[in-house]
Amino acid sequence: MENREMMIDRLIEGIKEKKAPIVVGLDPNLKFVPGHLKKQAFEEYGETLEGAAEAIWQFNKAIIDAVYALIPAVKPQIAMYEQFGIPGLSVFQRTTEYCRNKGLIVIGDVKRGDIGSTSESYAIAHLGKAAVGKNLLSVFDEDFSTVNPYLGSDGVLPFVNVCKKEGKGIFVLVKTSNKSSGEFQDRMLTGDHPLYEIVAEKVNEWGEETVGKYGYSSVGAVVGATYPEEGRKLRGLLPKSYILVPGYGAQGGKGKDLKHFFTEDGLGAIVNSSRGIIAAYQSEGYEAFGEENFADAAREAVIRMREDINGSI
Amino acid sequence: MENREMMIDRLIEGIKEKKAPIVVGLDPNLKFVPGHLKKQAFEEYGETLEGAAEAIWQFNKAIIDAVYALIPAVKPQIAMYEQFGIPGLSVFQRTTEYCRNKGLIVIGDVKRGDIGSTSESYAIAHLGKAAVGKNLLSVFDEDFSTVNPYLGSDGVLPFVNVCKKEGKGIFVLVKTSNKSSGEFQDRMLTGDHPLYEIVAEKVNEWGEETVGKYGYSSVGAVVGATYPEEGRKLRGLLPKSYILVPGYGAQGGKGKDLKHFFTEDGLGAIVNSSRGIIAAYQSEGYEAFGEENFADAAREAVIRMREDINGSI
Repeated sequence: MENREMMIDRLIEGIKEKKAPIVVGLDPNLKFVPGHLKKQAFEEYGETLEGAAEAIWQFNKAIIDAVYALIPAVKPQIAMYEQFGIPGLSVFQRTTEYCRNKGLIVIGDVKRGDIGSTSESYAIAHLGKAAVGKNLLSVFDEDFSTVNPYLGSDGVLPFVNVCKKEGKGIFVLVKTSNKSSGEFQDRMLTGDHPLYEIVAEKVNEWGEETVGKYGYSSVGAVVGATYPEEGRKLRGLLPKSYILVPGYGAQGGKGKDLKHFFTEDGLGAIVNSSRGIIAAYQSEGYEAFGEENFADAAREAVIRMREDINGSI
Repeated sequence: MENREMMIDRLIEGIKEKKAPIVVGLDPNLKFVPGHLKKQAFEEYGETLEGAAEAIWQFNKAIIDAVYALIPAVKPQIAMYEQFGIPGLSVFQRTTEYCRNKGLIVIGDVKRGDIGSTSESYAIAHLGKAAVGKNLLSVFDEDFSTVNPYLGSDGVLPFVNVCKKEGKGIFVLVKTSNKSSGEFQDRMLTGDHPLYEIVAEKVNEWGEETVGKYGYSSVGAVVGATYPEEGRKLRGLLPKSYILVPGYGAQGGKGKDLKHFFTEDGLGAIVNSSRGIIAAYQSEGYEAFGEENFADAAREAVIRMREDINGSI
């Protein structure tokens, strides 16, 4: 690891310091953005991609300001920005930078994956530096990225190589939180193991050379909160991988389901909530806040989530 | 399909008209870009992301001008643009637009895939229209996108829905061209079928409601030229899917390997070459062109590829 600080160690230190194994998903669907922010943005830029991007930027900024002191990390979902084209992706980049300046670790939920030099290009885009003439230039500069493993080692190892060089990390999709994740991931293989276990084995292999000072590697795994039994099994199969757990809250995962994703010392997992935090003001139990105070509602939702999770693990 | 023109029909018509089941991969790695174009771009924009983006734009434009009359479609690989950040992605967009204005069909090689509203956002970004206030705005506006199936139907159906609405199409990764594609895709399932066959079954299901006038659906499949035996099997298993075949040329696939990817009437498949075309001037057999004439070399490489493939099928 070229003797540099490893992001997985920084993530663990952040979780301990804030006492919050929590990541807030910055997935700013326009329907979560309060009317007054949209109105303001559309007045300035029109009902254009620029207008939409400005609205989600103002939304993000207020949420980040309200919650950054409570959490170690955020997870912007790039699709929500990509749908607004170049202006949207510029706000993805600005959000990443803003979060990093607040001391937050940024997990880019980009689910990229290809082969060889193409995967290397994605890894450069999201975690590394582009070589242009004599310069090495940071691009989107996330701290972690999520990676899709369907193409095999050829697809993942270029990310691992960039992680080694830059001290960064990835989370590989192993068992995703969605209903139909079983269609392929749960398929039983000859020899009686589901596919996701074989992916988990490979995650161990891919992470082998990147274990940091707390015993965790730079290659983590994504396992959905909606599958607690599989979470328990995978916790055992992935002793050196942090597990990024989506699907808590709006997707149906509960605090009590999460116990088995963690190790006995309360480490080993970090739980994401997106809609449940950033759109809390639209949810039951947060009526008192009102749309104007969406950021305060988000802060309150983080506090409740922290209690729920810390009380369960 | 709301009675609108279907892109898969247009692709088939383009292939017939040009007598070329060929797609040129626009994957402008900087090391393929001739020195004089880089020099010019760096003089104007410095050794910056903007400079790199300008160099690949000038490169692309010359290649497209030289080959568009010979081919029905191009396949820009977004990773190669994403690595240069916002300026790079702006050139991806400009390239897509330029190609469409030349009458080419654009297959965005984006390999996106997520779940639910997130997949929908990707589908909007690449094939659909973003709703902003009263406006519906085109974003990257490709004609087809490649999609990663690891997350199952939840991940793919949002793309299919956008395809239905917009008359566009996707190619789902089934059996990829890379060496380690077998790690997961070839795993034998209980009941003795490899995973990729189950993915192929789902491709049939996902495409069911989108069959166009030539009998092919809007949901195609990616199957690597490097696996001719699997190609033959999948041609049989996917009677209504066009197969996008990467891995020809630089990755080792040969014309004679391709026969079985096609149906007896010479339809059913479209073969991609990227490096073999756009970097032909750096290859054996093209020395006479010289770096300055890289676009003429690309044109000659398309002609040779067309002969090789049409002679084999």
